Order: sequence, then C-alpha cells, then structure tokens
Amino acid sequence: MKPIQNHKIVLIGAGNVNTQLGQALIQNGFTISQIYNRSASSAQVLSEKLQVPFVTSEEQILKDADIYIISVKDDALLSVISKLDHLEGLCVHTAGSVPMDIFKGKIKRFGVFYPLQTFSKDRDISFSGIPVFIEAANKQDIEFLQEIALRLSGKVNVLSSEKRKYLHLAAVFACNFANHMYTLGSQVLEEQGLSWDFLLPLIEETAAKVKTIHPSKAQTGPAVRYDQTIIKKHMAMLTDDNKRKIYRLVSDSIHGE
Amino acid sequence: MKPIQNHKIVLIGAGNVNTQLGQALIQNGFTISQIYNRSASSAQVLSEKLQVPFVTSEEQILKDADIYIISVKDDALLSVISKLDHLEGLCVHTAGSVPMDIFKGKIKRFGVFYPLQTFSKDRDISFSGIPVFIEAANKQDIEFLQEIALRLSGKVNVLSSEKRKYLHLAAVFACNFANHMYTLGSQVLEEQGLSWDFLLPLIEETAAKVKTIHPSKAQTGPAVRYDQTIIKKHMAMLTDDNKRKIYRLVSDSIHGE
Repeated sequence: MKPIQNHKIVLIGAGNVNTQLGQALIQNGFTISQIYNRSASSAQVLSEKLQVPFVTSEEQILKDADIYIISVKDDALLSVISKLDHLEGLCVHTAGSVPMDIFKGKIKRFGVFYPLQTFSKDRDISFSGIPVFIEAANKQDIEFLQEIALRLSGKVNVLSSEKRKYLHLAAVFACNFANHMYTLGSQVLEEQGLSWDFLLPLIEETAAKVKTIHPSKAQTGPAVRYDQTIIKKHMAMLTDDNKRKIYRLVSDSIHGE
Repeated sequence: MKPIQNHKIVLIGAGNVNTQLGQALIQNGFTISQIYNRSASSAQVLSEKLQVPFVTSEEQILKDADIYIISVKDDALLSVISKLDHLEGLCVHTAGSVPMDIFKGKIKRFGVFYPLQTFSKDRDISFSGIPVFIEAANKQDIEFLQEIALRLSGKVNVLSSEKRKYLHLAAVFACNFANHMYTLGSQVLEEQGLSWDFLLPLIEETAAKVKTIHPSKAQTGPAVRYDQTIIKKHMAMLTDDNKRKIYRLVSDSIHGE
C-alpha cells in the first residue's frame, strides 16, 4: 500500500469547509490532485490558494483518485452524488446532519468526514485539536479516514450518522446561538452609541472559562441568582419585542436549570 | 500628593469582584490596608489570599483610607452604604446596574468603578485589557479613579450611570446567555452519551472570530441560511419543550436580522 501522503485527493466543492480542509491537507503533507466546483469563480479562488488545478464539469473529474471529499450545500449533495456513480475511489461528505446512507445504491465506497468546527473561507484555522467524526461502510475505509484525520487533528472518533446529527444540533446552540447572543449584546451597546467591542474581553473569558468549568456550573448573572430587581429593570430597558422575548425565555431557562 | 501606590485602600466585601480586583491591585503595586466582610469565612479566605487583615464589624473599618471599594450584592449595597456615612475617603461601588446616586446624601465623596468582565473567586484573571468604566461626583475623584484603572487595565472610560446600565444588559446577552447556549449544547450531547467537550474548539473559535468580524457578519448555521429542512429536523430531535422554544425563537431572531 502506498504511503498515505501519496494518495490522490479530489475536492468536490470550493466552499468554507473545503477551503480550510484543503489548506490543512496540504500543510500536513497531502497532495490534492484536483478541485471540482460548478461555479468557476469560487473554484478559481481556491485553485489559486492551493495551487491545484480546477474543473467545472463533472465529466472532467479525475476517475482514479483515492478519495473524493464532497463538501457542498446539503440540498445539493444528492444531485452531486448522482453524477459520481461511476467512481471507484472512496467518496465522503462532510455534513453533520446528512446520514451516510445518502450514498447507498449510488456509490461503491462511501463514508463521512465531519470536522466539528465553524469555517469561513477568509479565516484560516488550524485543524489541530478539532474533533473529526468519521464513518464508512467498511473497515478498510474507516482506517483510511482515521489515518487522514489523525494527521490533521489528532482527535478522531468513529461515530454513527444517528449520533453525528446530535453533534450538529449541539453546535447550533454552542456556536450559532451563542454568536447571536453576541449580536444582540452588540446591538444593545450600539443603540446607545457605545462601541460593541467593549464586550470582547468578556466574550473571550466566557469561552475560556468552560475549558475548566462545565458551563452549567460557570453560569453567572441575574437569572441564575434569580435577581428579580435587575431582571425587571433589564426588561424595561429593552425596547424591541424580540429581545424582550429572548431575555425572558433564556432567563427562565437558566433559572429552571 | 502622595504616589498613587501609597494610597490606603479598603475592600468592602469579599466576593468574586473584590477577590480578583484585590489581587490585581496588589500585583500592580497597590497596598490594600484592610478587608471588611460581614461573614468571617469569606473574609478569611480573601485575607489569606491577599495577606491583608480583615474585620467583620463596621465599627472596625479604617477611617483614614483614601478609597473604599464596595463590592457586595446589589440588594445589600444600600444597607452597607448607610453604615459608611462617617467616612472621609472616596467610596466607590463596582455594580453595572446601580446608579452612582445611591450614595447621594449619605456619603461625602463617591463614585463607581465598574470592570466589564465575569469574575469567579477561584479563577484568577488578568485585568490587563478589561475595560473599566468610572464615574465620580467631582473631577479630582475621576482623576484618582482613572489613575488606578489605567494601572490595572489600560482601558479606562468615564461613563454615566445611565449609559453604564446598558453595558450590564449587553453583558447579560454576550456572557450569561451565551454561556447558557453552551449549557444547552452540552445537554444535547450528554443526553446521547457523548462528551460535551467535543464543543470546546468550536466555542473557542466562535469567540475568537468576533475579534475580527462583527458578530452579525460572523453568523453561520441553518437559521441564517434559512435552511428549513435542517431546522425542521432539529426541532423534531429536541425532546424538551424549553429547548424547542429557544431553538425556534433564536432561529427566527437570526433570520430576522
């Protein structure tokens, strides 16, 4: 068997995940042979970034790659897969909420490679320490994915589709919803002509604290103390109905813990 | 005028804020002369930590200190203040939501020293970079507080009580509510027998991202994409009504931005 770095990798899709994953693969000694993306503009940006040729029609996708990493929007996944049915290599998707079965009956060798992180094209990120959840239909492919993930992050877990979807749901709370709380906080300040970035050291410490204290134990503020005086004051200060509803519901949820 | 480090400081209260503030003051060359706290047990812990004597009755509070830093629960503040009416030194509280006027007619020289951060007794924190918001009734006291805050954090802002209360409200969203989103995410994983700390790199990156991108622009996930398929799946996966309500309300709020 050839050394893992000599395997031929093709990236299908040039979005946030493949932009960051592609960079991490190259930094860790892997060779990416080709990028496929339907739109030429995104493909070209990634192609230049990684110094890897790109194609925009399915017919041009290399047929002899060892692994195809498909990272496209969830609702585009099925149509992309249906065009790859002639391939012999391992096809994996990177989606948290899509079961591995989406490949069944269409692709010969298939699996999932799900890194639990938030990715942007413009924000380069180290894969080291990012938990990667893998799944494949046969043992050899699991081992193959394990080897790749171990090189990138060091934290690899074999996990079923049924469990993986809960990681994605948990991430919506811990990342997407937490970020929205930052947004609501920033609006409160900006409406008063105050700079939102006064909140940055607080945001940093709140995130750092849970590395050593479980978030349920790290909870502070008026809701956990059930300080009705402050809660009432805050409710009266909030001018829009949406923030008032969220303030009430989240405070009750904290208090109910 | 004597050098600022030679001023006599008394800490009133031995809770989270004074524990961290006391340590920061000493580390920055200040001298703390005394700690007062109603309960001896907390007073003793802080006394040992800072190597500063403590008292538990108001009569024993030093009368010749330059500054008294009062950090007690909001609802205890008024009764503490009423017992300090004989003092000549500057009395400041550290509360975000309590107006400076609480001192009026009771204390001669008064002000506010509000560090915007979340503090725990057991988690030592650097004051460097923490924004401190100060207020005082006269110019000389403002300058005195500015000097102290500049030595501790370097980020000092003179701000009215009217504005300061919005900092506290914003902090409830960005810290307390964001932390609760971590808790809800952790519960989703733990109910599935998955380790909650898979979320840590994601939490760290979500907080780090907003240092360079405004949170409203950093928003990712199904709600901002208005991905109804995933939103419906997630709603169906949530078993308790509280999480379902929060998922719906926060998703709508993100989508409505």
